[in-house]
Amino acid sequence: MSEKNQVTFKEIAEYTGFSKTTISRYFNKPATVTEKNRKIIREALDLLGYQENKVAHILATGKTEYVGVIVPNLDLDYYSSMLDRILKTYNEFGYKFIVFVGSNDTAAEERYIEELLAYQIEGLIIMNHTLPSESLCSLSVPVVAIEREDRFINSVNSDNYLGGIEAASLLTEKTCDILIHLNSPTDESIPASQRISGFRDYCSARDLRYEIMIRDFGYSHEEVYSHAKAAFEEMETRYPGMKKGVFCANDVIANYLLGQVIRKYGGLTPLYRIVGFDNTPVGVKAPYSISTVDQQIEVIAREAICLLMEKIRQKRTGDPAARVPIHKTVTPIVLRREST
Amino acid sequence: MSEKNQVTFKEIAEYTGFSKTTISRYFNKPATVTEKNRKIIREALDLLGYQENKVAHILATGKTEYVGVIVPNLDLDYYSSMLDRILKTYNEFGYKFIVFVGSNDTAAEERYIEELLAYQIEGLIIMNHTLPSESLCSLSVPVVAIEREDRFINSVNSDNYLGGIEAASLLTEKTCDILIHLNSPTDESIPASQRISGFRDYCSARDLRYEIMIRDFGYSHEEVYSHAKAAFEEMETRYPGMKKGVFCANDVIANYLLGQVIRKYGGLTPLYRIVGFDNTPVGVKAPYSISTVDQQIEVIAREAICLLMEKIRQKRTGDPAARVPIHKTVTPIVLRREST
Repeated sequence: MSEKNQVTFKEIAEYTGFSKTTISRYFNKPATVTEKNRKIIREALDLLGYQENKVAHILATGKTEYVGVIVPNLDLDYYSSMLDRILKTYNEFGYKFIVFVGSNDTAAEERYIEELLAYQIEGLIIMNHTLPSESLCSLSVPVVAIEREDRFINSVNSDNYLGGIEAASLLTEKTCDILIHLNSPTDESIPASQRISGFRDYCSARDLRYEIMIRDFGYSHEEVYSHAKAAFEEMETRYPGMKKGVFCANDVIANYLLGQVIRKYGGLTPLYRIVGFDNTPVGVKAPYSISTVDQQIEVIAREAICLLMEKIRQKRTGDPAARVPIHKTVTPIVLRREST
Repeated sequence: MSEKNQVTFKEIAEYTGFSKTTISRYFNKPATVTEKNRKIIREALDLLGYQENKVAHILATGKTEYVGVIVPNLDLDYYSSMLDRILKTYNEFGYKFIVFVGSNDTAAEERYIEELLAYQIEGLIIMNHTLPSESLCSLSVPVVAIEREDRFINSVNSDNYLGGIEAASLLTEKTCDILIHLNSPTDESIPASQRISGFRDYCSARDLRYEIMIRDFGYSHEEVYSHAKAAFEEMETRYPGMKKGVFCANDVIANYLLGQVIRKYGGLTPLYRIVGFDNTPVGVKAPYSISTVDQQIEVIAREAICLLMEKIRQKRTGDPAARVPIHKTVTPIVLRREST
């Protein structure tokens, strides 16, 4: 890496014999420089080793190779893992990512999107829940959602229904007295709500005793912790001495629940079998490794980019299919670890 | 958000009466369109509501409002927390971030930097350890390092030396029989090596019994886990029955060490007092909260952006100070939690 971008207006002016003002006008208001003089300056730039300017290239081709990413936060393991895998696709596909960490604030998210569009992104990957897909689908670039409401836009999601079945099935193997599912209030339009349906349908079809405990686990560690603690205390009171098989909506909830079990019982106990969802690092950071339904985050990230590329291509070639949203699902895999 | 960017070449052609080829040349090779015709097209674009194009704006002003960020990975909590806080500075300062997740591969990192420079970033924030500051300082944009070798470039770091003292001091309060510091082999040029010096100087000055255990804890969870486990077993063998005060180089090591303690002793034991470093979420996810030296990641992220802005300004105004690297330190704060 040399300082090849260090060619200054002064140097270009000296080399060409023009004034610095003329050089400035060449870059900022090229229309005010005659074509003959522009040619002289262009040749001087080449000779002086002026660095390739991708911004100029973008104007010429319309291809920025930029993709925008909006993610709710990076403190929860699922989002940081997903962003990590998305960014790493650069090595395979060459797309660069402009990343925004979103709030739950609609106005802020609209501002992020306006910024991204102004910078000529070719496509958008969105994990935030703030804006409805109905408004996202009218953007001028293709949008791929991951695990959020996706009716009018493309999406790549885990097969959440199957994941719910897999979790219930794993807990059934362990002959629990009752199966419990912990989840946040999840609208049916959100793919993850299928985890609840899969779990419920599996239990109902087999006449298993089960309960679905819906609590607002929230987005911060403090919230998840306090609700997992409250849920643990409830289970202790309601089902004393019973063997409880608990399917948690994500690994973070499972981790806090296991923490409560450890605090009370000094380690694993036959009274609890715990399985999470996602396969994020939190599941292997706990004192006892936590079984989980592996979303295959790396596969989802790669599929999201591939789907986006396909939609970008369709849009560019004027293919009418560009406007038809595609929904892909990735099959999750149960990982059996110490907590079950 | 409307589709205002959807004005097509065809529409512009129809509106102006020029051919689509001429419109294309206007955007791609403006020099081949006469100034008179360019003016007509420009006015048509305005009237047709062609969306503001920041890319064109960049060419005109040289200000992209882009900052490049290179981070080693997002699986380790320190990096995902730092990136989260860096990205959130958008709300205050308006800089947009193009993010690369780095490998330890020099060629890959040079490619990331070439890409970022080609996209006209205004500055670079770097957390990777791959390239020496001596080569980074010759880039055409200001560079701010966070917790990496920074001799020739700007940096914002925790006051690591003070952090080491604070950790040793906290453990001393707890009247341990021996103080132990776990760290990876850390070159003296890396700011975090000062954690070792601070710890050692504090213990030496007070004639405390101490040991510095250097193990290559690595960058993946598997590596950190297996080395923390091995270190725990070593401490058990070497100092049986003694009260051990352990200062871990980061919260992730502290978490795995606490996990081993819980697995052996069923919970906290007077035999171990553990303190980590960073104050990342991993410290509150454990079954017992882990004391830590809080780097104040949010403050560091903000200071990094402010320093970068100052250097961008100096560079733009031709201030000779632009070339003088500035090193800022942020005072860490001890957080007392259950593990001590």
